[in-house]
Amino acid sequence: MPQFRKNPLTQEWVIVSTERAKRPNDYSGIERVDLSGLPEWSAECPFCPGNEAKTPPEVLGYRKQGEANSSGWWVRAVPNRFPALAVEGGLNRAGVGLYDTMNGIGAHEVIVETPLHNRSLAYLDETALQDVAWAWRDRYLDLRRDNRFKYIMIFRNHGRVAGASLVHSHSQLIATPIVPIEIEQELEGMRRYRDFHERCLLCDVVVQELYDGARVVLENQKFVVVVPFAARFPFGLSIIPKRHQASFADMQRDEIEQFASVLKGALLKVDACLNFPPYNFSLHTAPADLERSEEYHWRVEIMPRLTVAAGFEMGTGIHINVTVPEEAAEYLRRPGPGSPAQVPSSAEAAVSAPPATAGGPS
Amino acid sequence: MPQFRKNPLTQEWVIVSTERAKRPNDYSGIERVDLSGLPEWSAECPFCPGNEAKTPPEVLGYRKQGEANSSGWWVRAVPNRFPALAVEGGLNRAGVGLYDTMNGIGAHEVIVETPLHNRSLAYLDETALQDVAWAWRDRYLDLRRDNRFKYIMIFRNHGRVAGASLVHSHSQLIATPIVPIEIEQELEGMRRYRDFHERCLLCDVVVQELYDGARVVLENQKFVVVVPFAARFPFGLSIIPKRHQASFADMQRDEIEQFASVLKGALLKVDACLNFPPYNFSLHTAPADLERSEEYHWRVEIMPRLTVAAGFEMGTGIHINVTVPEEAAEYLRRPGPGSPAQVPSSAEAAVSAPPATAGGPS
Repeated sequence: MPQFRKNPLTQEWVIVSTERAKRPNDYSGIERVDLSGLPEWSAECPFCPGNEAKTPPEVLGYRKQGEANSSGWWVRAVPNRFPALAVEGGLNRAGVGLYDTMNGIGAHEVIVETPLHNRSLAYLDETALQDVAWAWRDRYLDLRRDNRFKYIMIFRNHGRVAGASLVHSHSQLIATPIVPIEIEQELEGMRRYRDFHERCLLCDVVVQELYDGARVVLENQKFVVVVPFAARFPFGLSIIPKRHQASFADMQRDEIEQFASVLKGALLKVDACLNFPPYNFSLHTAPADLERSEEYHWRVEIMPRLTVAAGFEMGTGIHINVTVPEEAAEYLRRPGPGSPAQVPSSAEAAVSAPPATAGGPS
Repeated sequence: MPQFRKNPLTQEWVIVSTERAKRPNDYSGIERVDLSGLPEWSAECPFCPGNEAKTPPEVLGYRKQGEANSSGWWVRAVPNRFPALAVEGGLNRAGVGLYDTMNGIGAHEVIVETPLHNRSLAYLDETALQDVAWAWRDRYLDLRRDNRFKYIMIFRNHGRVAGASLVHSHSQLIATPIVPIEIEQELEGMRRYRDFHERCLLCDVVVQELYDGARVVLENQKFVVVVPFAARFPFGLSIIPKRHQASFADMQRDEIEQFASVLKGALLKVDACLNFPPYNFSLHTAPADLERSEEYHWRVEIMPRLTVAAGFEMGTGIHINVTVPEEAAEYLRRPGPGSPAQVPSSAEAAVSAPPATAGGPS
């Protein structure tokens, strides 16, 4: 029997389909995103060292010495060359008959995660991955000082199918003058839960998931990685801080370390279980003016691109997930190629992985 | 300068991007969905005449004579062999800790639109296309008698990229025990507009679009086809009845005729302008218990699949449209291959096409 499950954050119902149930191997014919066969450096790539002049002037560069826009960096951020939004100007809200418009004001930046052309995020050393997280935080903190920006979303497109146009490992950041509708819905879901229970929804989700265990994929002292109960997509993952924290920018050093470790572990498991699939990830943090409030609890969503949304999903907003979340979690928990024992640089993840508990409702 | 535009139905902001502006020819490398090169009949196809036993028993068959599940039909509807929802049973709402679930109850049917294996919807005679619309209506009217179903969505996936797994021309129907979140948002948008103006939002949209003309693609006596002001996707189209009507099932015979004509015209223009792209379409009608209310105004959405949603869209719900709606409408209005003069079977569309009015704001 298929099942409707409600996402308590967005209040949306998801259909977990059993008639069409798919195992990891059923998602074949998907783009395989593995950069390791590429050269370490490409003359044409605007993100490779030595090609700094091919991008707009940098807004961040982590390097020991040397000038801005020279090589020698290990993380670098630049404005997007084809930005979706323009950084200069005012909003100028206006009506066009019954319609509402405003200028497309915002910031659109690219964070180049490594100087190596053939190394994607999951395969960086943990210290290098921590520096990527520090760069996200630095750019966030710089941009949120601009009062025009109400929200800053950090995201990643991994693979062509997931919308990436350049292969060199990078993430992006878009600052918008409005709080996005998806975040508004999450805030509304958290407020309704708090009104009723006087507790944070995601804090309770963490407690329930750790107690239940069926959807837990990875865990360390500060974070838990779960397949959400009402995951929209097969093998979708949430990385949630165990302690209540509205903004990812409030992470302390030890939290950044633990975040990098668990992010690496989750991405390696996705690659190992699903044969290097394309994926998107988005960092859901509090709106700029709610950072100090109790109302939000940040998290990261990882969304492997294994299926396509079709007319039903687009028309209704109801997603059909063809892999039961508890089964996806069980597959992802399994040891195997790419899991901690085989990948020395993520050894921490092995220690913190929970025992593969029984299957839960399915 | 890019522009934010608000969709008055869903209240969502869309970014109309100008830096990355794309013309029809820029969407190359997309799947070309043209069935005319296929044979007229395929032994393997479960939707071809003579293969009726390969589907579950039919729930509708338009034929002059002969028994159910024999050949001789020109439109046929059957339950989906791999349904997303199960038709038998009760909802059994239940909690799993803090989560909410219910049984995946619903109906999932396939409407086979033609016996010909190599003819897609846009290339049917108008009378045949009218019969497809009658079949949608018949199945809708049958299913809405079941009190468990709160909403019935009719949709089409055209091409592999759009989620179609079988090439033989077909649409689908899913009845759900809940009103989908997308429809709830549209109802909310229409209610807010009505509270303020005491008029129907889509009735006002029709008036404004016809007066402005910049986004109008086709028009006849009863319907107008526009590129929505805040279209999520490049070359997205809405087919809207000019007269206020909550449910598509209330169409009279003359309205069905005009609807079939304008639907055919719109699909032919999409094929001609964009070189036979994959697309989805969804029929947004009132929830079953609001059919008699003033609160909804039905329409059809056609969504060519030219771009992929990426991490930003998935995380925020804000879509980036890289073709300005007024420019898309201008391209679609142009006469040319596939437009009425070249395609005799849609000659009516030529008569009803409006003059290509000037460009409007862009």
